[in-house]
Amino acid sequence: MERVFNFAAGPATMPLEVLQSIEKNVCNFEGEGLSVMEMSHRSKTYEKIINETRDNLKKILELDDNFDILFLQGGASSQFAMVPLNLANNGDLTYYAVTGNFANKAWEEAKRWTNAVDITNSKPDKYKFIPKIDNSKLDKSAKYLHITANNTIFGTMYDKLPEVDIPLVADVSSNVLGKNYDYKKFALAYAGAQKNLGPAGLTVVVINKKFIREDIDTFVPTMFRYDIHAKNGSMYNTPPTFAIYVAGEMFKWVIREGGVKEIEKRNVEKAKILYDLIDNSTFYKPFAEKESRSIMNVTFNLPTEELEAKFVAEAKDEGMINLKGHRVLGGIRASIYNAMTIEGVKELAEFMQKFEKNNK
Amino acid sequence: MERVFNFAAGPATMPLEVLQSIEKNVCNFEGEGLSVMEMSHRSKTYEKIINETRDNLKKILELDDNFDILFLQGGASSQFAMVPLNLANNGDLTYYAVTGNFANKAWEEAKRWTNAVDITNSKPDKYKFIPKIDNSKLDKSAKYLHITANNTIFGTMYDKLPEVDIPLVADVSSNVLGKNYDYKKFALAYAGAQKNLGPAGLTVVVINKKFIREDIDTFVPTMFRYDIHAKNGSMYNTPPTFAIYVAGEMFKWVIREGGVKEIEKRNVEKAKILYDLIDNSTFYKPFAEKESRSIMNVTFNLPTEELEAKFVAEAKDEGMINLKGHRVLGGIRASIYNAMTIEGVKELAEFMQKFEKNNK
Repeated sequence: MERVFNFAAGPATMPLEVLQSIEKNVCNFEGEGLSVMEMSHRSKTYEKIINETRDNLKKILELDDNFDILFLQGGASSQFAMVPLNLANNGDLTYYAVTGNFANKAWEEAKRWTNAVDITNSKPDKYKFIPKIDNSKLDKSAKYLHITANNTIFGTMYDKLPEVDIPLVADVSSNVLGKNYDYKKFALAYAGAQKNLGPAGLTVVVINKKFIREDIDTFVPTMFRYDIHAKNGSMYNTPPTFAIYVAGEMFKWVIREGGVKEIEKRNVEKAKILYDLIDNSTFYKPFAEKESRSIMNVTFNLPTEELEAKFVAEAKDEGMINLKGHRVLGGIRASIYNAMTIEGVKELAEFMQKFEKNNK
Repeated sequence: MERVFNFAAGPATMPLEVLQSIEKNVCNFEGEGLSVMEMSHRSKTYEKIINETRDNLKKILELDDNFDILFLQGGASSQFAMVPLNLANNGDLTYYAVTGNFANKAWEEAKRWTNAVDITNSKPDKYKFIPKIDNSKLDKSAKYLHITANNTIFGTMYDKLPEVDIPLVADVSSNVLGKNYDYKKFALAYAGAQKNLGPAGLTVVVINKKFIREDIDTFVPTMFRYDIHAKNGSMYNTPPTFAIYVAGEMFKWVIREGGVKEIEKRNVEKAKILYDLIDNSTFYKPFAEKESRSIMNVTFNLPTEELEAKFVAEAKDEGMINLKGHRVLGGIRASIYNAMTIEGVKELAEFMQKFEKNNK
């Protein structure tokens, strides 16, 4: 089969030119006689790869030297634990904006060690909007406010970061490098790589150095301490070397494409094509409220579940895969991360119009 | 440059045919129109990959259904914490055979929650041998005995597993699939992938199901619980999909090569070529004691540090890289994992003879 249009929520589509560059180097990296997978992480060549990768991300996110970038393992799910274990003491007050499934998992995990309070209220509405956060109601002694910048399952996103007087922590797994936030506003932001950064198995953490603590409770595993990873340049133990290399190729692609601002513009355009079609249809029904819509995951419903199943199957036959919504919500979800082309989105839109005509 | 002979201790050399098979599928996996890196871990194609990978490893290790295989992240260093957190309660007695640097790290980590007792005594001798373990001296109430099956830095290895009446846990990172142990004897064995299993960023855990507990202390992060990963088939969160795929290609290669017994035979032969040369030389001096020698990492010294540096540099010029010993021990280390060919070892031996002649 020719290359498909892959609308998966993650692991997700990658730019073909990045894959081709990896392909060219799989057996013999830049003529050095071995694969990146075979390279000692302490070798000069690999150190150049990881340093360049770190530097490029700092450049893309416009971070100064107050910030450190860590390349870790364990996914966002490990960060759900690392954040409270490192940024708070046992029993401390922490705030969580529970705006979806993963936000809820982060909150549940934080409750093991901290007095973690959910300050949102969108669950009865199936998380279809991002609630406003009222800074005046927040106890300033709280260690941080944790938000989930983009909610893949529900297709909602913070268009603007909340303005609060306590440290802001964000799970940016699904819109990092796709939505232009001011990363200097974060005490900490983390992202599983498998949406906009490359392959699963790498987690990128951006941390303001003043939040790196050494006086951590002794029961915290060494591998769950930011200070240990920061002190060792993400090489306390062997890092996921190949995944970091691929992320580096993704970062170079982002730079070639004009950076996050340019990519965000394109993402807005892509999302608009689909939302406009949905809003102008009586057949398709949008899920997320307008002001809270994600530019990464577009969620909607068809008149019946049977039609939704038919939609997913017929789209697949036309080379557009993974359009089925998450089992928690059902419906249709089109994930249109950075690497999804406008061409792919237009093809989906055409298919949607045709499907509506044939099934109305 | 042509392909080098890579004697790195890990990440390490891989079979060229495995790399070539990956290369062929990087952009378009078996004609499905997308890369494995882009595949949803919940897709049928990927489920087939992970299931086949798990099944092949069970077959290779001759494990029955009393055992589970987990594909995790975080390296052996995360296992240093997960083992005591899951197999013992706070304050329980555990035994550690501290036979090297990583064994020591495992012990240090276990001391955070358990009464972890080192039962070995080879540190004053720079860990140059594997001490015998006397079962009659072990308190049978201990939760487990932890051994490091192969010590990469020092070049030592358990030729036979210790016979003990308490559960046996092993870090097999550096000789899994290279040395034929009876894996049914382990309560748990774990391996970072980057030596004999594929790329860094994947940790394989073999666990006897009766050691999977659910009554774990609440402070233990969800991601550090074996029961959670086992219950979810290593898909509690997104697993390191590409690394698992590559490990799967490695397992297929092991099967094609005749399994672990056959590969062990070859490793013994490879090690013998180097040890025979060293033992018959007055120029090269072996580090590890004969009975404790590793068939994965061969460690030795030259008369002076200057000659060692010259040896490493000249070997590199001849396409044999990463022969420098670990900074903890110094000297020379030739790591000859499964994927290192006999041809590569013979070339190293020839170089060693030539170097001795020229520098004696």
